[in-house]
Amino acid sequence: MTVHEIGKKAKEITNILGILGSEKKNQGLRSAAEALISGATEILAANQKDVEKATKSGMNAGLIDRLELTSDRIGAMADGLLSVAALEDPVGEFLSMKNRPNGLTIGQKRVPLGVVGIIYEARPNVTADAFGLCFKSGNAVILKGGSDALESNIAIVKWLQIGLSDAGLPQDSIQLITDTDREVTKEFMRLREYVDVLIPRGGAGLIKAVVDNSTIPVIETGTGNCHVFVDESADFNMALDIIFNAKTQRIGVCNSCESLVIHREIAPKFLPLLKERLSLKSVEIRADKEACSLEPSFVPATEEDWGKEYLDYILSLKIVGSIDEAINHINQYSTRHSEAIITSDYGNSQKFLNEVDAAAVYINASTRFTDGYEFGFGAEIGISTQKLHARGPMGLKELTTTKYIIYGNGQVRP
Amino acid sequence: MTVHEIGKKAKEITNILGILGSEKKNQGLRSAAEALISGATEILAANQKDVEKATKSGMNAGLIDRLELTSDRIGAMADGLLSVAALEDPVGEFLSMKNRPNGLTIGQKRVPLGVVGIIYEARPNVTADAFGLCFKSGNAVILKGGSDALESNIAIVKWLQIGLSDAGLPQDSIQLITDTDREVTKEFMRLREYVDVLIPRGGAGLIKAVVDNSTIPVIETGTGNCHVFVDESADFNMALDIIFNAKTQRIGVCNSCESLVIHREIAPKFLPLLKERLSLKSVEIRADKEACSLEPSFVPATEEDWGKEYLDYILSLKIVGSIDEAINHINQYSTRHSEAIITSDYGNSQKFLNEVDAAAVYINASTRFTDGYEFGFGAEIGISTQKLHARGPMGLKELTTTKYIIYGNGQVRP
Repeated sequence: MTVHEIGKKAKEITNILGILGSEKKNQGLRSAAEALISGATEILAANQKDVEKATKSGMNAGLIDRLELTSDRIGAMADGLLSVAALEDPVGEFLSMKNRPNGLTIGQKRVPLGVVGIIYEARPNVTADAFGLCFKSGNAVILKGGSDALESNIAIVKWLQIGLSDAGLPQDSIQLITDTDREVTKEFMRLREYVDVLIPRGGAGLIKAVVDNSTIPVIETGTGNCHVFVDESADFNMALDIIFNAKTQRIGVCNSCESLVIHREIAPKFLPLLKERLSLKSVEIRADKEACSLEPSFVPATEEDWGKEYLDYILSLKIVGSIDEAINHINQYSTRHSEAIITSDYGNSQKFLNEVDAAAVYINASTRFTDGYEFGFGAEIGISTQKLHARGPMGLKELTTTKYIIYGNGQVRP
Repeated sequence: MTVHEIGKKAKEITNILGILGSEKKNQGLRSAAEALISGATEILAANQKDVEKATKSGMNAGLIDRLELTSDRIGAMADGLLSVAALEDPVGEFLSMKNRPNGLTIGQKRVPLGVVGIIYEARPNVTADAFGLCFKSGNAVILKGGSDALESNIAIVKWLQIGLSDAGLPQDSIQLITDTDREVTKEFMRLREYVDVLIPRGGAGLIKAVVDNSTIPVIETGTGNCHVFVDESADFNMALDIIFNAKTQRIGVCNSCESLVIHREIAPKFLPLLKERLSLKSVEIRADKEACSLEPSFVPATEEDWGKEYLDYILSLKIVGSIDEAINHINQYSTRHSEAIITSDYGNSQKFLNEVDAAAVYINASTRFTDGYEFGFGAEIGISTQKLHARGPMGLKELTTTKYIIYGNGQVRP
């Protein structure tokens, strides 16, 4: 099937999905969860093919771990669908309803986006997650997964579709593009006629390719060069705990800390403690000249380091003379994901909140909390680092748009 | 100055604009309004140059009328800025604020987008309007107007900047790209580093060029192939009044009616009345075979007619056998702007509201009401026909985004 045909099929069922009741959608999700369990043997066998191919081609152990499925992981995917079934349906909510002087009644109602496209990399569990969120919010979803997980994704989509059919629901609610040709992916990115929004999930390279090539509106997600600024009034223990958590609790994620900004006044006392704490996880510190002169064991940073998302046990460190200098540095190099200040000063805390331009700005807490579950949404389709439509963690509501509905009784414009 | 330099300058002042108090912004708007009046002679002289050039090059009278400024029109531009000053400031509103079980307090606050780019065609009054809305919502704006209005725009922007300076505010809050080279416009559309959103205002060709070339997130505005569906239960007089209003009250606008869909049951009785009413404004009706056989004076429609935005005294007409056929036809050819049903049937009214996919869906009212002022926003930067970020008329709120602010006391992620 061509990408064009896939898009057309998806568009054709948006009217059915858009008016499905919540209970019917929840039935579909429960049925899809059951089907994943029924198909587990087949899904695991398909996944084994992907893992063998990846091993042969020399993929590193970390990536293979992300690619590999187990019975438990399939169980977790099914549980994920059940959790989404338990969430409140965002569709149909009225954001406003008012009467106008001419007698018109104008309401703004939440409706599905229509067709959501998702382009993502190796982790096959995204396939079921993305389907669950899109389906619950009344959207058809078209997935383009990474070629490394192709066999796994084909099997997962097949069983999700079986689940939908079993519940009497359109199986084209989820479709997978299986052609791995790059030109096909480009064609997908220009399918504006059928696809309402495109969400890339993956590394900076993937996201840039989508932004550069798509004519469909894109929600940019994910890249995080997150800073922690230690103000001169910071509680040292709190600062050390937060930095250690934000850097090392999980290194491969977009809300982990990649760069520290330290106030000059406290640097001589704070840097040795920092070095000691981060040495517990052998974190490499790439610092500016001033910090290197205080701590010769630090690696000298280059200009490139300030903008880098390491996703590794590495962080950059810059010393500043004031909160203004800290804010300027952060606003210059940040990817506008998550930024934190550690301070005891009320004025500085407010200044940082107001002037740092990012999706999430923290006072005295770890940047690792930027996450749909931690924010209480019960789900997450990604973290938007752009300003249009949605900013920060995106849950079900962010997969919807609105429609104005107007009740009249013959009004014409004078 | 290069486009890159203009972008950089705009970005640099976003921090100042983002935290300006409402009263300071209103002062700026009042001062800019005064400056427009002070500069009226110079603005009119510049406009005369544009008008002379356009006349020589053979521009039609309608377009020249849109281009031409008068003292009254400059007065109206100044009044527009004063009206915007009187509107509520959207910046700083909290959409939510909640405590999490771990003691974090998470708030979602409305903040400016940052830098807004607007690409528009000949009408020079857009220059002042767009500035007013962007400035009030805390954004820097970069304008790229049509070359036909270049001298006018240069003069208007000069005096708006004088007004800002007089009020002690950054004059780069509004900047104009004066280089008319197409490559410069393309460069502007790829200035993602500095520009947060791009809003094209103009005809379908301009909008398509922006959508195809921009890497900056775009809000698509304006094109409207709006339908009115006359259901079999419609009140004929109401239908005739609404169609006449929606088609002829103002022909050159995106919310005017371009296509009629008529239920077969009423066609024989309704078409003669329709023909009579529309003949008052000599409207050409391009109809399908069935309608042409009932009314031989109708012009036979081609496939191309169904998707056409005429912006003229022309409309297309299709006969259908059911509301489902009407909805399918509308969803196939609509630009998702504004669609109306004329009906006395409760079930059909609800079905139409639910199943027609458009920014604004009307029961028994003219599509001409889709407008920021008519919806009670007090202003309008355009009408979004896409689903991302904003859908329908966009006022001040739609020129903002949100930021999560998180108050902690040392929380780390377990």
